[in-house]
Amino acid sequence: MGGDFGPRCIVPAVARCLARLPQLNVILVGDQAALESALRSCSLPSDRVSFRYTSEVILADDSPASVLRRKTDASMRVAIELVRDGQAAGCLSAGNTGALMVLARSVLGTLPGIDRPAFMAALPVAGKACYLLDLGANVDCTADQLFSFAVMGSVAVSELTGNPAPRVGLLNIGTELHKGSQRVREVAERLHNCKQLNFVGSVEGDGLFRDQADVVVCDGFVGNVVLKASEGLADYLQLEMRRAVDQHPLIRWLAPLLRRVIAPVRERHDPALHNGASLLGLQGVVVKSHGAAGEQAFAAAIERAWLASQAGLPQRIAERLASSAL
Amino acid sequence: MGGDFGPRCIVPAVARCLARLPQLNVILVGDQAALESALRSCSLPSDRVSFRYTSEVILADDSPASVLRRKTDASMRVAIELVRDGQAAGCLSAGNTGALMVLARSVLGTLPGIDRPAFMAALPVAGKACYLLDLGANVDCTADQLFSFAVMGSVAVSELTGNPAPRVGLLNIGTELHKGSQRVREVAERLHNCKQLNFVGSVEGDGLFRDQADVVVCDGFVGNVVLKASEGLADYLQLEMRRAVDQHPLIRWLAPLLRRVIAPVRERHDPALHNGASLLGLQGVVVKSHGAAGEQAFAAAIERAWLASQAGLPQRIAERLASSAL
Repeated sequence: MGGDFGPRCIVPAVARCLARLPQLNVILVGDQAALESALRSCSLPSDRVSFRYTSEVILADDSPASVLRRKTDASMRVAIELVRDGQAAGCLSAGNTGALMVLARSVLGTLPGIDRPAFMAALPVAGKACYLLDLGANVDCTADQLFSFAVMGSVAVSELTGNPAPRVGLLNIGTELHKGSQRVREVAERLHNCKQLNFVGSVEGDGLFRDQADVVVCDGFVGNVVLKASEGLADYLQLEMRRAVDQHPLIRWLAPLLRRVIAPVRERHDPALHNGASLLGLQGVVVKSHGAAGEQAFAAAIERAWLASQAGLPQRIAERLASSAL
Repeated sequence: MGGDFGPRCIVPAVARCLARLPQLNVILVGDQAALESALRSCSLPSDRVSFRYTSEVILADDSPASVLRRKTDASMRVAIELVRDGQAAGCLSAGNTGALMVLARSVLGTLPGIDRPAFMAALPVAGKACYLLDLGANVDCTADQLFSFAVMGSVAVSELTGNPAPRVGLLNIGTELHKGSQRVREVAERLHNCKQLNFVGSVEGDGLFRDQADVVVCDGFVGNVVLKASEGLADYLQLEMRRAVDQHPLIRWLAPLLRRVIAPVRERHDPALHNGASLLGLQGVVVKSHGAAGEQAFAAAIERAWLASQAGLPQRIAERLASSAL
């Protein structure tokens, strides 16, 4: 039970989700003392919550390889094992991303035909979302991997949003045919020829925010940088606006009203409401929460894991991968 | 004389810069009829402006290789030749980026020790700028190239801003030592050991907007995507805010005042004012304007080219590269 705030943020988020999702049951995996301390200020219904106490902790700077070999009683590993053993429908963690990636791959295994899983998350755009993958599970990707990300992303977004043919784009530095690396050009051609995908071609950076595609594929280095840069820029612009408003007496006086007027915009773009990156391509549901997630953000990630398991994402992706035309 | 709007936008931008910069002289290179047409509605002082008429046009989808072999009388090539021949102190173009890159490299040549030039531009942050390079000249970079980008960026920012030791960061997907690709880790180690650079370590995407560095180095694919995504997100958020304001009667009535209050924020972040990417590493000054630049944006790019030539950027970079410690 990781993340910057641990059980004292996670327990109230679980309480909130249990109230919202009547069919949800939760197994809390982590340190007994920390869990019991958090439960003192926020009780949970005992018929829908169970506990698995663990003794080891994965730290932020533990290397993935060392996590894999040691720390067999860390909460992250135990939670993934519960998914493998059919005792949980999905696993959610706010801990070390690299560790989650290697443990999930090792304990659950990947789907047939999938070499590496990919993280997918939603960028809020135009009242809906543009899903982006990979977000950092793979720093360098082969053309095969990028192609499989497109298939997985398309299936997942279709299942999650009900859109039967999500528009799939390939993140690139131009829309002309000769733009991008050799690898990107190769993937573009394969996606273009794949009749099962609604491939809309190359999407440039700004296209992510111009509603040009429902799913956009890129390698994990680019995806991670773009996602974090977007968060950083949105935060920064908000701060700049607040400073400008504070400097003008009349407008500052109107600030509460102004805040109410732009509240819908802020809510639509609040990273907290879009927290939770699905690790696609595994034989089970694994979702990663932002490490710095607060209660509301953690609740959003629980809901994401719940929806992914309800939609049976791993099975749906496996079916599509097995279909002969790919 | 390229770009989406050609001479009818460029000529007024030149007039504006001639008024602002008393020592500036301009050679306009392009199609005679188009230039004469633009000069009918905006005259320029004949003692400070001369003309070179050209007969060929480089199109947006001409491949760089074909531009290099054919089109010897295109304005872009002729303008770069003027720099090579010492008749111009710098070249500014709003045309095909790939063509500009290969022509500049072929006609001017790179500085000793530089394999590939890199585009550098400014992201407006915290009332100053975070300079980012490369922005698309090189889709895949070696560790050597990334290292040379850091040296060139540091010298350029030092000359342009007067900061003797700009903070240099390496764009990465985490700040821990084991994060990033093998290549990024290798560059990080070399930068760390280079005493002539003020290397501050890895910078994540959000760090670009948190004033963590003055110069940030990355490969051209990532840089291009991040720059365009930032522009797209800023545009999109502005549109969302405007819509929200329009929906509330009182706030809509106050919109003119509100616009005046946030004008300084908008101006500080107006991409038009930060137009112009310097192509560093060449034996001469070459600046690329956004293709869709309007008059104000084009004027900003002219000023950037002027400042780069006044600072003698190519010479300053060559001196640093030649210094033994690198």
